[in-house]
Amino acid sequence: MHPFDEAIGLQALVPGEFAGATHPAYANMVGPFGGTTAAQLLQAALLHPERQGEPVALTVNFAAPVAEGEIRFHARPARTNRSTQHWLIEARQADAVVATASAVMAVRRETWSAGEARMPDPVPDVATLTRMRLQAPIDWPKRYDMRFIEGGFPAFDEQEQAHSRSCLWVRDEPERPMDFASLAALCDSFFPRIYVRRRRHTPIGTVTLSTYFHADSHLLVQVGSRHVLGVAKALNFRHGYFDQTGEVWSPEGQMLASTPTGTARLQRAFICCKALATSVTSSGPL
Amino acid sequence: MHPFDEAIGLQALVPGEFAGATHPAYANMVGPFGGTTAAQLLQAALLHPERQGEPVALTVNFAAPVAEGEIRFHARPARTNRSTQHWLIEARQADAVVATASAVMAVRRETWSAGEARMPDPVPDVATLTRMRLQAPIDWPKRYDMRFIEGGFPAFDEQEQAHSRSCLWVRDEPERPMDFASLAALCDSFFPRIYVRRRRHTPIGTVTLSTYFHADSHLLVQVGSRHVLGVAKALNFRHGYFDQTGEVWSPEGQMLASTPTGTARLQRAFICCKALATSVTSSGPL
Repeated sequence: MHPFDEAIGLQALVPGEFAGATHPAYANMVGPFGGTTAAQLLQAALLHPERQGEPVALTVNFAAPVAEGEIRFHARPARTNRSTQHWLIEARQADAVVATASAVMAVRRETWSAGEARMPDPVPDVATLTRMRLQAPIDWPKRYDMRFIEGGFPAFDEQEQAHSRSCLWVRDEPERPMDFASLAALCDSFFPRIYVRRRRHTPIGTVTLSTYFHADSHLLVQVGSRHVLGVAKALNFRHGYFDQTGEVWSPEGQMLASTPTGTARLQRAFICCKALATSVTSSGPL
Repeated sequence: MHPFDEAIGLQALVPGEFAGATHPAYANMVGPFGGTTAAQLLQAALLHPERQGEPVALTVNFAAPVAEGEIRFHARPARTNRSTQHWLIEARQADAVVATASAVMAVRRETWSAGEARMPDPVPDVATLTRMRLQAPIDWPKRYDMRFIEGGFPAFDEQEQAHSRSCLWVRDEPERPMDFASLAALCDSFFPRIYVRRRRHTPIGTVTLSTYFHADSHLLVQVGSRHVLGVAKALNFRHGYFDQTGEVWSPEGQMLASTPTGTARLQRAFICCKALATSVTSSGPL
């Protein structure tokens, strides 16, 4: 079984109630990788017997640090329409809310379609790039094959950069066919923009993250387990908070998801972040 | 009293429960302008006695059409931390959910700050532009003074455009000092991107909208009742849904809000949209 499937596995209890747990393969510096938490929240709605359609939007609010161990998920359809369904999902530990989410499911149909944003072009072929090896004691980045074209995990040399843009080819490691849960997790896999911009240890915690699924399940099947192109940037850093705007593209240049959110908090004191002070081998031609 | 303050006025009932109503000044083709609904949802949290800090993020899910008349709002703090507070808010009519929202409040402090995105430059001075006069039987656009630089409300000549970008100076009409509620509403005031792109009658309904508040209340006081610069574009239109990315800038070039969301649904049959088929006088130098 793929570690991601182990990590997002949920056990159905009473209707709408699921039990899951953190997974050591996706451990972050403190608690789990937010992407797996986001995927578990989405999964609670996807596994619900009343679910109709496929995800078009997901907003996850990271309300508190998630502790290692069991997490209870409660999913309820707030409103079911003919073609859309609105979900509210909560994650609890020790009876306190640690994360909330809303999701919109929809029955899609073919309409006039057109891309407006374009995938960065040209980008180097995946095979010409080397995989990033992060020499830090955090596990979740090892679950991704990340090949940076620009803006990789920085050396913390405190050389402030003019921008925080990143561009990389990324897939699950080991390979796993993409589905909505793994796409939701991948959308949280961009390293904090402040690292790329300031190249200094800055403890942060994401407080909210939205993901818009432009892909339907047919398109995800076409993507399969290949690398997808991730692009991320920040718009603004101000008074303790910054945002992040991400895009995920299929190898053929179809937008799979935009994740234009991720208001993250700059924290002054966050002791465990020192774990990141270990050496980093960045990858790619830049 | 300003019509916006009338529109977002809420009466406190039992703790966490508020009564509001739709307001004719902000009527849309069917039901109310989504911006006032978003502002009411935010207001329910802002007025709650347990609220701490100022909004940094708001996600509104428009679950069903809002009927004219009373709306009940229920706000609860899902989690209160030292510097952040996570809110869940629901709007109901006839005991059915019509909208849900999540909001993050935060106590901000001064940190290293830096803009990364830039306001479009140069932009014409507000005074050199004429206000858009929309000759359509919808009321809410009359509550804004919109002066388009690019991508105004189109003539529906079915001439498909290469992009859907808009840029405009906008403020409440009549003038009103900006606060978080009015900024949240203004973030929903961008006309549907598909109108700008396709210039044809396309009935749509927004299903979800996130707004990130980069401004704190001190910055909003500096903005006052002046025009702010709005910028909007779409990334992708596909199989019944499209997104919208918006930014709102102070006259001095400080990002007030980014609203990079707005997955909107393309509906095939939405009879009342025909009301928009009336003539439109667009404004501005383009």
